[in-house]
Amino acid sequence: MRVIYNEQMADLANLLGEMAGLAGSAMDRATQALLQADLGLAEQVIGEGDRIAELIQDAEERAFALLALQAPVAGDLRQVISAIQIVSDVNRMGALALHVAKVSRRRHPNHALPEAVNGYFAEMGRVAVSMGASAKEVLETRDPERAAQLNQDDEAMDDLHRHLFTLLMDREWKHGVAAAVDVTLLGRYYERFADHAVEIGRRVIFLATGVLPPDPDIEV
Amino acid sequence: MRVIYNEQMADLANLLGEMAGLAGSAMDRATQALLQADLGLAEQVIGEGDRIAELIQDAEERAFALLALQAPVAGDLRQVISAIQIVSDVNRMGALALHVAKVSRRRHPNHALPEAVNGYFAEMGRVAVSMGASAKEVLETRDPERAAQLNQDDEAMDDLHRHLFTLLMDREWKHGVAAAVDVTLLGRYYERFADHAVEIGRRVIFLATGVLPPDPDIEV
Repeated sequence: MRVIYNEQMADLANLLGEMAGLAGSAMDRATQALLQADLGLAEQVIGEGDRIAELIQDAEERAFALLALQAPVAGDLRQVISAIQIVSDVNRMGALALHVAKVSRRRHPNHALPEAVNGYFAEMGRVAVSMGASAKEVLETRDPERAAQLNQDDEAMDDLHRHLFTLLMDREWKHGVAAAVDVTLLGRYYERFADHAVEIGRRVIFLATGVLPPDPDIEV
Repeated sequence: MRVIYNEQMADLANLLGEMAGLAGSAMDRATQALLQADLGLAEQVIGEGDRIAELIQDAEERAFALLALQAPVAGDLRQVISAIQIVSDVNRMGALALHVAKVSRRRHPNHALPEAVNGYFAEMGRVAVSMGASAKEVLETRDPERAAQLNQDDEAMDDLHRHLFTLLMDREWKHGVAAAVDVTLLGRYYERFADHAVEIGRRVIFLATGVLPPDPDIEV
């Protein structure tokens, strides 16, 4: 039983890692689509939504089968429960990448972003992609120290987000209300993407140490 | 075993229902705080964040204990898994009510909303509160038809949200960029609150019928 459990749990963790990697790659291309007003790339990201939905269902079914057939206890049980919770985080990360792609499709052939904020979104995209890759690595290695580093990336994201809002709220904002609305929503999508990556890190830390770090979102 | 399982599962469902009710009540007061620029009410909602966090932890621990001690199978196992997924939805609903309260605190003593959009937010608040109450009822009764009605409320919310955006994007918007940014974020918070209530309905329908309705968020 134990050998089968270990094997199936490792498969499930790798599937979750693969999904986090896909979400990061989707956010990478969605950011490129946004910065370059590239409709083809946006459509490509949107078209992959079904693939992510399939993987989500696959992961949930594997977790369910693990519980039903292996009846894990104690720490093993916690791992499967955490996997189920993590599925919902990677699901949201994928959905948020799709949201970014949809904004750039909606504004095509125009750019959704005023040029003045391109730098912010290039950087938020870079941080998001790096956090997707870190989440993948953390899921595969279950290294709590690596997981804790996700908080530093999240702080970088929060800083960028704050600066972006200062810019929006400034009387000097010259790009109109419609652009401000797009920038506000897009900023929120990147920030939430990062929050979900942090949440994955928290779950992995909990599995490794037995202590769930405080939820940073409660402080916001 | 079976009697204990049924009793504990009913307790857990009632706890989830109570939490959905609390999230609805928090959104109710957050909306009042927003419309009336009532700092005391906003602070009250924000102060209850800890209480919701405690209930979340309590619910997760109960679900874990149920799995560990009762080792449910088949449909019973699905119920517990669904409960764990629903915890994360009610958690977000509570967090979104807090976000609304925080915007009104941040703008105090000013109103965060231009008077022209008060009617939209009063109505979005009403729909959100009604969906919180429906989610509570659905969790307690597990009635799939009642659960499916959450989709109609969600359509009403989406309509309000769309109209609000038309107003924001209109050249006639006279309330400046800062107000537009607040209105954009606030609109998103109400819309997401509704999405999580629908998600709870989907989980309950799945438990009752074995079929998971399509995720409406994927279409957006």
